[in-house]
Amino acid sequence: MLEFDHIARIRARCTTRSDVLLGIGDDAALLQVPANTQLVVATDTLNAGVHFPEATSPADIGWKALAVNLSDLAAMGATPAWCTLSLSMPEADAAWVDAFLDGFLELADAHRVALVGGDTTRGPLSVCVTAHGFVEAGSALLRSGARVGDEIWTSGTLGDAAGALVQLQAGSAVDPALRERLDRPTPRVALGRALRGIAGACIDISDGLLADLGHVCSASGLGAEIELAALPASAALRSAFDEESRRSLQATGGDDYELCFTAPETMRSDVERAAREAGVEVARVGRIVAGTGVVARRENGEPWTPPRRGYAHFA
Amino acid sequence: MLEFDHIARIRARCTTRSDVLLGIGDDAALLQVPANTQLVVATDTLNAGVHFPEATSPADIGWKALAVNLSDLAAMGATPAWCTLSLSMPEADAAWVDAFLDGFLELADAHRVALVGGDTTRGPLSVCVTAHGFVEAGSALLRSGARVGDEIWTSGTLGDAAGALVQLQAGSAVDPALRERLDRPTPRVALGRALRGIAGACIDISDGLLADLGHVCSASGLGAEIELAALPASAALRSAFDEESRRSLQATGGDDYELCFTAPETMRSDVERAAREAGVEVARVGRIVAGTGVVARRENGEPWTPPRRGYAHFA
Repeated sequence: MLEFDHIARIRARCTTRSDVLLGIGDDAALLQVPANTQLVVATDTLNAGVHFPEATSPADIGWKALAVNLSDLAAMGATPAWCTLSLSMPEADAAWVDAFLDGFLELADAHRVALVGGDTTRGPLSVCVTAHGFVEAGSALLRSGARVGDEIWTSGTLGDAAGALVQLQAGSAVDPALRERLDRPTPRVALGRALRGIAGACIDISDGLLADLGHVCSASGLGAEIELAALPASAALRSAFDEESRRSLQATGGDDYELCFTAPETMRSDVERAAREAGVEVARVGRIVAGTGVVARRENGEPWTPPRRGYAHFA
Repeated sequence: MLEFDHIARIRARCTTRSDVLLGIGDDAALLQVPANTQLVVATDTLNAGVHFPEATSPADIGWKALAVNLSDLAAMGATPAWCTLSLSMPEADAAWVDAFLDGFLELADAHRVALVGGDTTRGPLSVCVTAHGFVEAGSALLRSGARVGDEIWTSGTLGDAAGALVQLQAGSAVDPALRERLDRPTPRVALGRALRGIAGACIDISDGLLADLGHVCSASGLGAEIELAALPASAALRSAFDEESRRSLQATGGDDYELCFTAPETMRSDVERAAREAGVEVARVGRIVAGTGVVARRENGEPWTPPRRGYAHFA
């Protein structure tokens, strides 16, 4: 099978949008960005065995490859529009590509994202996606927007994806609810949009809450205090891990793709309304403080040291 | 070394532009597309051992990874502006990243392209670049723009990169001029820009002239005839290969990243002026005809059959 056949296969299944003047099938895509908006662009690659377990189903790989990029757009408060896909595979396997597209396009269609270009090449299994979206000028949510006294919020529950990975690596039974969170993360696009004008800073949690909140602190030139007991946990995580393990997963486990954001205390009801509109639970988990770095505290106020802080490639 | 250190390293060396509202360092880049223009987006991945020989220097890999994407923008007549870079490496090697950036940023700076985001991850060596550019509304050069009777042109010389690859794979000495063309292709950005309003169809030659012209024919619903003797050859290619081998390389060898374009005979002097302005040689190599498919002819008019037609991944 030639590369062109893969591309024809992908092209046949893509939906389009009126702002795609030219999609798959030329040297490049031709796109119309709406007036008075800014373009938001994120790129992330998933490699087999690094970003997903080797045995992950092709549909889940497709879903996740797009999800992690839409999550970056969500963290900016952007509306997704288009994506490109660069797919490297060890061999030509039409059934694999079809299954991959099942997951990829399910998520793309749910967010009205058009796949407008890319390539398929021979190589170790790797998926690089670039996602494009828009925000009205000046309304993007930045990492640098935190202020002293802001409350820190997170969406959904934390530690689920990392919990699944721990179970998987231990060779034990993997809780299906946790596995679903690892394989099919939900980009919080509606929440990110709803938080424009409300949140100060925003980031998505891909490397673990403490690590990602650390990026917000660095960008804002401030510090943060987190109440360990306030971190939201799913029922599945509570039943699968003891308290210490669970808290470690919640504070440092990556791959949940929830949003972590800050807002002044006076905006508390606005945050709660935005979350209701977006259909997502949110929890207040800490506060922005003067200084640097992120401190997590136990109920008794003592600082808690994570056994492992964030997910480090090359570590 | 952590991923963040690589990113800091890359960020420190990047130049920026006034239309980059937010570059490397947040969840996504924030970019301002100029009014009255359309956005042009191309994505291409290079994998070690597939798109470049394993022993290619990191600087050449960096150059080529950007060049093949700028070549796609050139084929649309677009002005490059921004790119993202997704770099997968088997191990953390700061010296390798620095050398890679030497080549990547040399070409980026030459075209005023700002690197605005991306990621670095662990995995087999692979480089995915997404390039963004602009064209004034309605002025993009498309594959579908060929008309019956149009003359077919190519820029530069053909077959050089494929010639280097043949020498390399044979284990013989590789001509430095040919090797330079394989490792450091020149995206014909100025020529693509100069051809707006002159060329009908345009494509860049990445898979070989016959294969890529075939895409123009398919998109335009027409056929093409090529005069084998008219294909431009470098002195290096002439001296390194006999005539039959040379012609095969010129007609079917990929990786040259020259432009192939069509224009009405009445525009011949406009084409030549555009090429002079862009500082690139161009050659008339054939004609668009009714029908389908591409026929290459020898001097005596007999059709010539290539021993191998284009470069097919997964073939």
